[in-house]
Amino acid sequence: MKIRVYYEDTDAGGIVYHTNYLKYCERARSEIFFAKGKTPTDGDNSGFVVSHIDANFLGMAKLGDMLEVKSEVLQEKKASVVLKQSIFKDKKKIFDMSVTLVFVRDGRPRAIPEELQNFFN
Amino acid sequence: MKIRVYYEDTDAGGIVYHTNYLKYCERARSEIFFAKGKTPTDGDNSGFVVSHIDANFLGMAKLGDMLEVKSEVLQEKKASVVLKQSIFKDKKKIFDMSVTLVFVRDGRPRAIPEELQNFFN
Amino acid sequence: MKIRVYYEDTDAGGIVYHTNYLKYCERARSEIFFAKGKTPTDGDNSGFVVSHIDANFLGMAKLGDMLEVKSEVLQEKKASVVLKQSIFKDKKKIFDMSVTLVFVRDGRPRAIPEELQNFFN
Amino acid sequence: MKIRVYYEDTDAGGIVYHTNYLKYCERARSEIFFAKGKTPTDGDNSGFVVSHIDANFLGMAKLGDMLEVKSEVLQEKKASVVLKQSIFKDKKKIFDMSVTLVFVRDGRPRAIPEELQNFFN
Repeated sequence: MKIRVYYEDTDAGGIVYHTNYLKYCERARSEIFFAKGKTPTDGDNSGFVVSHIDANFLGMAKLGDMLEVKSEVLQEKKASVVLKQSIFKDKKKIFDMSVTLVFVRDGRPRAIPEELQNFFN
Repeated sequence: MKIRVYYEDTDAGGIVYHTNYLKYCERARSEIFFAKGKTPTDGDNSGFVVSHIDANFLGMAKLGDMLEVKSEVLQEKKASVVLKQSIFKDKKKIFDMSVTLVFVRDGRPRAIPEELQNFFN
Repeated sequence: MKIRVYYEDTDAGGIVYHTNYLKYCERARSEIFFAKGKTPTDGDNSGFVVSHIDANFLGMAKLGDMLEVKSEVLQEKKASVVLKQSIFKDKKKIFDMSVTLVFVRDGRPRAIPEELQNFFN
Repeated sequence: MKIRVYYEDTDAGGIVYHTNYLKYCERARSEIFFAKGKTPTDGDNSGFVVSHIDANFLGMAKLGDMLEVKSEVLQEKKASVVLKQSIFKDKKKIFDMSVTLVFVRDGRPRAIPEELQNFFN
């Protein structure tokens, strides 16, 4: 997934504001849903929520840069899945994180429904 | 209402990203609700929505600045209200706008309910 | 220019937060620069800044929607240009605005340099 | 440091968009500078940059909530400092993270200057 850096993404330091890398990763996760004709929430108050993020800020990006987000599954359990998401600028990795997503219905963790198992592969 | 400019508000130009002045004005409108013990939506799918904005960008603000938002009612009609909101930095006006808010229930304009009439005064 | 609506763009009302339409328009203006191999600022402290916006919020967009931004020049003067930018969702216009951009160098309005005249056409 | 949740902070799930907790923590770090009459960057292209974040999302916040951010130093080394920042809603912790800040000048890690040592205590 390709992402362009706009003014709104940068800060007074002239580079991308650090939390925006996490936003880019969320966009990439949502695009996996859209690409499969789904939305990230299925209307009955359930969906994946972020429970843990471990992120490394390795480089920087600036206005006009074109970035690429890559996602892979590290581990899938009954009620959660751990992804590794990395952001590249011209093949150079500038950010990576592992993110744990818990499947939740009505605010409580539940087993991932069958149709969403292995969803992020 | 006082608002501090943080990194997230600035862009690579070193100053506040232009749409953030509109955000600050929205915060000020919401604070009017919170100050009266209400929330901007009352749970039955109704509330004020922005239908028109006419904004002048008169100056600039930068990281760490403390801004002040002032709001006054220009006009109130059956289903809408027009506010003037201005942003000051050290007494100097750097932004103003008139914003038209329409009262909507289930996606359709409705008469402003009695308890919300003259609400923004 | 196509723009996807992500979680970050929506608010608790379930729809796109109103100021984000202005962000989408700014992205479209920046893309005009990128498409021509330029960046919106040319490094000598000059560029176009927003001085006035008159915006109509005509409809709404929600998570996953694919929007399209169209831009045209309404008027070009010595030191400024007025654009009309419209946002469509499935051919239906949900937002439009006229935006006045002033060319500025070192914080002061200047004549638009020759290479940026008729730039947005 | 107290932070109000506004519309802009929420998403279509009705709660605070996950990356905004990181923004709140950044605001709190900047306020430590402002409270001491400084800005987070001192003008000679130097400052603290985020190099690592390990974050736990423990609860949720919604429109109008008043949150509190608390920060403490976990460890300080020659060129970096590790903070623990926690966000509370009505005394209940809803988020915490450890964040590693590296002192950088001209893009390269440097020893923290004397006047910024023990700065976050």
